[in-house]
Amino acid sequence: MSAGPAAPPRPAIPPARFAKRLERAGDVAGDAGLDALFIGAGADLRYLTGYEAMPLERLTMLIVTPGRPPWIIVPRLERAAAMAGLRTPIEVVTWDETDDPYALANGSGHRRVAVSDTMPATHLLRLQVAAPGVTYSLASAVLGDLRMVKDGDEVALLRLAAQAADRVVAAIASGPLVGRTEADVAQEVRDRLVAEGHDRAMFAIVASGPNSASPHHEASDRVIAPGEPIVLDIGGTVGGYGSDVTRTLWVTGGDPAMGPDEPFRHLYAVLHHAHGAATAAVRPGVPCEAIDAAAREPITAEGYGEQFIHRTGHGIGLEAHEDPYLVEGNTRGLAEGMAFSVEPGIYLPDTYGARIEDIVVCGPDGPIVLNELPSELIVVDG
Amino acid sequence: MSAGPAAPPRPAIPPARFAKRLERAGDVAGDAGLDALFIGAGADLRYLTGYEAMPLERLTMLIVTPGRPPWIIVPRLERAAAMAGLRTPIEVVTWDETDDPYALANGSGHRRVAVSDTMPATHLLRLQVAAPGVTYSLASAVLGDLRMVKDGDEVALLRLAAQAADRVVAAIASGPLVGRTEADVAQEVRDRLVAEGHDRAMFAIVASGPNSASPHHEASDRVIAPGEPIVLDIGGTVGGYGSDVTRTLWVTGGDPAMGPDEPFRHLYAVLHHAHGAATAAVRPGVPCEAIDAAAREPITAEGYGEQFIHRTGHGIGLEAHEDPYLVEGNTRGLAEGMAFSVEPGIYLPDTYGARIEDIVVCGPDGPIVLNELPSELIVVDG
Repeated sequence: MSAGPAAPPRPAIPPARFAKRLERAGDVAGDAGLDALFIGAGADLRYLTGYEAMPLERLTMLIVTPGRPPWIIVPRLERAAAMAGLRTPIEVVTWDETDDPYALANGSGHRRVAVSDTMPATHLLRLQVAAPGVTYSLASAVLGDLRMVKDGDEVALLRLAAQAADRVVAAIASGPLVGRTEADVAQEVRDRLVAEGHDRAMFAIVASGPNSASPHHEASDRVIAPGEPIVLDIGGTVGGYGSDVTRTLWVTGGDPAMGPDEPFRHLYAVLHHAHGAATAAVRPGVPCEAIDAAAREPITAEGYGEQFIHRTGHGIGLEAHEDPYLVEGNTRGLAEGMAFSVEPGIYLPDTYGARIEDIVVCGPDGPIVLNELPSELIVVDG
Repeated sequence: MSAGPAAPPRPAIPPARFAKRLERAGDVAGDAGLDALFIGAGADLRYLTGYEAMPLERLTMLIVTPGRPPWIIVPRLERAAAMAGLRTPIEVVTWDETDDPYALANGSGHRRVAVSDTMPATHLLRLQVAAPGVTYSLASAVLGDLRMVKDGDEVALLRLAAQAADRVVAAIASGPLVGRTEADVAQEVRDRLVAEGHDRAMFAIVASGPNSASPHHEASDRVIAPGEPIVLDIGGTVGGYGSDVTRTLWVTGGDPAMGPDEPFRHLYAVLHHAHGAATAAVRPGVPCEAIDAAAREPITAEGYGEQFIHRTGHGIGLEAHEDPYLVEGNTRGLAEGMAFSVEPGIYLPDTYGARIEDIVVCGPDGPIVLNELPSELIVVDG
């Protein structure tokens, strides 16, 4: 049970960068007229301090005040874990089990506060009760601008994650698949994600036959049969940064007569074209919704518009889904360093569906695709 | 990669029970003067409907209105997943990517609404903006009473989880340990939790030497050495219900001279006594804080009061931490069927620490301890 051969050194975020991020967070909060950011356990906290706090019912909260040093409220029993986890020096204020951490947080008389988007109601409502005159808004409105644009180390981690996930897709595609349950394949996916270098597996959609028409299908006890598609949508984290790749397979069971039927081949060809068109449209300044439109137009033109039932993509980084969202109505322009999925899908209820997903970084002149797997339909014996 | 021998059938919550729970939820909400419960993705939703929705940025929300049928708002792309996941018939209302689900939720003109405690700010603040006149409170104030008291099927799942975790502790204690990193042992814990029947591993605290003085230590690259303690605190879920067990080991490396020093033996003896006293105090009607006091008094009497830096326990069920909390100030009386951890600890900063944790159900006449491992200090060669 000892570790295997030593892994190559992994890119990491240098400690000095956290201090810079905290300074910028204070600046953008001040520019937005906020008195403070209240950042609970979660991706914002990890982005600003490196600390991956347990998202539990006890309040852990970083307070960023424009022009003043940040400080963090931590349950006393997590003080040592926080000191080990914080990658930049921050004043740590602990509270005991019978203290009221909400009063502590509100003690500075802030009037306009933005809270991290993932802060649970159990904290937010108690903060609101403890300080009724305060106006609360979402921290993503200011931190989103920072977190959306990845630096070189972040892109390196996203690339490592993407390539590790690619290897898992390739291994799964090499079979065996026919005769196994979706759930069994999903467990193999999870094991392989970790074996290929992920910190942990986060999701493993294995949607076979008619289940492939459900974009967020939960891997079930359905047994995979020859002559049907499988949508494989998998991901985990490497150094905190996410992978998220989707490929569609078709398993023949070794029988050439059980290959993809003509309607499926057509559907996939349309999808493949749409995926390529959306990816090719990526460059700085292009509105997010234009990438969505670039995927949607060819799909709609071929009559599948009503079957493409979700947006084209989501940002990715320390969260599996984060800004920017590639969706109609999002007029924000892409900027160099933004990282997001491009993942059109077509779903025919009760019949089958398909999706193709890569992680793409907006480069200076166009898309930088982090996944290296071909995006063609993967026809396998299974 | 096929599955191993078929697992024995696992207890499950019968579908009819969800309809009952929904009915009771409506009743208690009405009794509390609430117009509605807004239940997002999470344990409350799973408890009431069986549906384990992905906790993503798109709103999935069950609406329970006293005296009326419940309904659920679901993103259109998750409709099929919701239909598969809901274990009781509920009207499903879908929203498209460009719709406003918050307006949909608020359309019924509710004035007093309780939201699930885990609902993220991204949803709660948008609900508040969409309907400024509404008063929001936490759903745990009404659902906690229901969820706290486990039925026979829930206890059976908690027991399965506890016993599976026990087997993992026993396997880890059998070594090897010395010379391995905490992180490597933690990965073995995670693998074994799944191999022993958990749906997934949730946490694996492996805190060796001075790290054992940090209750929520994150398994690190520290190499385990002879002549030191290891606090092992591990858990996962079986059928959604949590395991959570802590044992303290001492590794000698096979050298009798490297056994526990006298101060540690004394510390552990005090802790062991406190753990037993707290467990023995469990019976219906006893206030939660009295269990905490039963653990704290012997520890304080021996001079370790300042080193027992957390409450004595937390409820457990579909969440790793839930009501009831065994903490000073919680005057709620225990009731038959409540399930919780009993886990006193003593921590000497920079030196070492110890904790003992079992999951206990309040039986009709006293404690029912679900874990079956002895609670003595586990001295091993390592």
